Amino acid sequence: MSEESPNTRISPQTQPSLREQIADAVRTVRETTPLAQSFTNFVTINLVANAQLAAGGAAAMSFLPDDIIDTATISGADYINVGTLLPFYKDALPQVARAFHNTGHPWVLDPVAAGIGETRTAILQSFKRYPPTVIRGNASEIIALDAMWGLNEESATATASKPAGVESVDDVESAIAPAQRLAWFMARHGANGTAAVAVSGATDMVTDGEHVYRLAGGSAMMTKITGAGCSLGGVTAVYLAVAQPLIAAIAATSLYNTAGEIAEKRSNGPGSFQVALLDALWNVTAEEVADRAIDMR
Amino acid sequence: MSEESPNTRISPQTQPSLREQIADAVRTVRETTPLAQSFTNFVTINLVANAQLAAGGAAAMSFLPDDIIDTATISGADYINVGTLLPFYKDALPQVARAFHNTGHPWVLDPVAAGIGETRTAILQSFKRYPPTVIRGNASEIIALDAMWGLNEESATATASKPAGVESVDDVESAIAPAQRLAWFMARHGANGTAAVAVSGATDMVTDGEHVYRLAGGSAMMTKITGAGCSLGGVTAVYLAVAQPLIAAIAATSLYNTAGEIAEKRSNGPGSFQVALLDALWNVTAEEVADRAIDMR
Amino acid sequence: MSEESPNTRISPQTQPSLREQIADAVRTVRETTPLAQSFTNFVTINLVANAQLAAGGAAAMSFLPDDIIDTATISGADYINVGTLLPFYKDALPQVARAFHNTGHPWVLDPVAAGIGETRTAILQSFKRYPPTVIRGNASEIIALDAMWGLNEESATATASKPAGVESVDDVESAIAPAQRLAWFMARHGANGTAAVAVSGATDMVTDGEHVYRLAGGSAMMTKITGAGCSLGGVTAVYLAVAQPLIAAIAATSLYNTAGEIAEKRSNGPGSFQVALLDALWNVTAEEVADRAIDMR
Repeated sequence: MSEESPNTRISPQTQPSLREQIADAVRTVRETTPLAQSFTNFVTINLVANAQLAAGGAAAMSFLPDDIIDTATISGADYINVGTLLPFYKDALPQVARAFHNTGHPWVLDPVAAGIGETRTAILQSFKRYPPTVIRGNASEIIALDAMWGLNEESATATASKPAGVESVDDVESAIAPAQRLAWFMARHGANGTAAVAVSGATDMVTDGEHVYRLAGGSAMMTKITGAGCSLGGVTAVYLAVAQPLIAAIAATSLYNTAGEIAEKRSNGPGSFQVALLDALWNVTAEEVADRAIDMR
Repeated sequence: MSEESPNTRISPQTQPSLREQIADAVRTVRETTPLAQSFTNFVTINLVANAQLAAGGAAAMSFLPDDIIDTATISGADYINVGTLLPFYKDALPQVARAFHNTGHPWVLDPVAAGIGETRTAILQSFKRYPPTVIRGNASEIIALDAMWGLNEESATATASKPAGVESVDDVESAIAPAQRLAWFMARHGANGTAAVAVSGATDMVTDGEHVYRLAGGSAMMTKITGAGCSLGGVTAVYLAVAQPLIAAIAATSLYNTAGEIAEKRSNGPGSFQVALLDALWNVTAEEVADRAIDMR
Repeated sequence: MSEESPNTRISPQTQPSLREQIADAVRTVRETTPLAQSFTNFVTINLVANAQLAAGGAAAMSFLPDDIIDTATISGADYINVGTLLPFYKDALPQVARAFHNTGHPWVLDPVAAGIGETRTAILQSFKRYPPTVIRGNASEIIALDAMWGLNEESATATASKPAGVESVDDVESAIAPAQRLAWFMARHGANGTAAVAVSGATDMVTDGEHVYRLAGGSAMMTKITGAGCSLGGVTAVYLAVAQPLIAAIAATSLYNTAGEIAEKRSNGPGSFQVALLDALWNVTAEEVADRAIDMR
């Protein structure tokens, strides 16, 4: 929370529409069970699907372009995560992104381990031409993707910090400018005219390219299970099926922060934390999610 | 449960042999730890293996034809699930089905998302020549497969309802005739001379092509975790290693309905439900599984 | 425990340095969060990652050689598990092993289902030229690998017992000589000059080729969840990032035996056992791990 600018802090009084939209997204998902399809890594694919179901959506996971393009006709949004690449992804993922672009199908990109491996770099660079609607990643990934897309002359020539595998070595604040550039670029060049970037960290950040929203809370235990970030990305796609990019990103992040706090209290280690997290995603109310503190600038 | 035909309801008095065979299957699995091999999707592969172990069997998962054909010499039955297809499956899966057919190796097919994607359709169509011993799916998948195999002139020309990804949009009753046609075809053209089809839904249905068995119970929470159906298919293969197709399908479905009811009572959301489901698969008695109501016509 | 040779039993008094090194490894992992990368099977990949995190390390899973070789520059050790092979592994895995060998990068091999499938055999045979630093497997796998590498004239001509899929059909004692031969060979021909082999079973065994250490305890429930062995292999790689091969193998095995005993007491079946196992991996102290009985000869 910012102490310098208390007047920009969003409260139910000052900007009720944002909170109403968040609560609406949470409720609409539970009432309509929207399908979000995922092309995601093998480590956390089960948790992504279970989190999407626990949030109230439906899940389908696919890897073949013909499967994905066919399923996309019945899914509200898609989620693409570039972890655990296989050889055929190099052609399949750009093909899928192009198909989404051509039909205006909204999708969430999770640029896992951006900066590692030439195949991953080639895939992520190809997405510049067919940009996603939402990006969710950690600070290092967002900084690396901004550099790959060459959105800033400084960043294009800067020596990006080497990511520590799938862990971030940068803090969220250092990713704000890259995130804003990415969101601005996606809104301008994407198929939907609007976009958002969410950066996960101790305090999460979401931006539509203009405003920056900081969302505190959650649990440090989220870094002690695999897939908290991936499953948040998958749930963001579920919300994106019923809401605008900015609202989807904020609602999913707030849901996770709320559920993470509850799960931490009800668990005794990472095994029981993951179980309690899924239970909490299922049980928290739309009001609990919408009424959290949001610092907007 | 049918109110019209209470006299066809199976009770321990009217048809003890069916119940005895169910109880025998549950006990024999626990006493002999039969191996069932799986070629299954990446979303729920862990739950399939854990459910097979919790039911008392052993699990091995393979994707390369040389692995599968080699392991099949020591497995009692196999499980094939066509979710999350990769490019090489298009050749590998028909090759595996042919090998099973030539050796008379029993196997369970889970036609996940039947009707979506031309690769999946090509694979599922190829299985008509080398049919499985048991099929387990939801109503939409069973209807789609029956249409693909052209088992009914009406169904071959009918416009099948588009499946909602991996979720069924049809009810179990509408899948009865397709399920009977599939079971009849498999019994006639399969390697074993006998077959069964199980349709999962609010009330499950199992048929050998002649009789139709309805099995009520279970838990709506099974649709709120990913893999309840897949793991039921995997457990069906474990039972198929020690029992006839009809008994294997009924026993596995009854085990799941029993365990699902127990798990629902002991859980507080989908995370704890899955944990409790595995515990219940392990702890329920053969009598609890065999003594459930079965509506046979 | 051996009754014949109580004088060789290691106690804190007779060989404190071994126990100190075990406790140091457990503590150092928790303090430094070393990254261990895995190329592992799809069944248990999630549990491997979660166990590595629960033990205090960091996890990254990769399959493309360019990803793996790039990530290996920031990982302390790697874990390779040959379950669920895909076609491209036949070239990728030998390429990765060669790269590790050339840079002296330490790695743990889990020869899952050694002896099944010609592709797996070709891959495992290729590793003789670029040997791992630690091998962890069940008795049948260790015996099969020793035979494949032709380390003993008798074993090269003996008819190895057919493995029962991923389950061992041999007992740990019968794998001692093969394990010693493998460890001796790896120490001599590997990149690090030192090596260890761990054999999992009712009583586990670890050897550096010279001494044999027997570690009792754990829980029979570990055989009723999938991935206890795989995740132990992954955690061994985490310890290998901060300790010598012998210490890494003993520390990881002791951690698992300690955590397994705790988990068994706090669970009611395989579902809750896995949850409790992850919690226990997180909560046990370095002293609890280091103070267990070790029978050394």
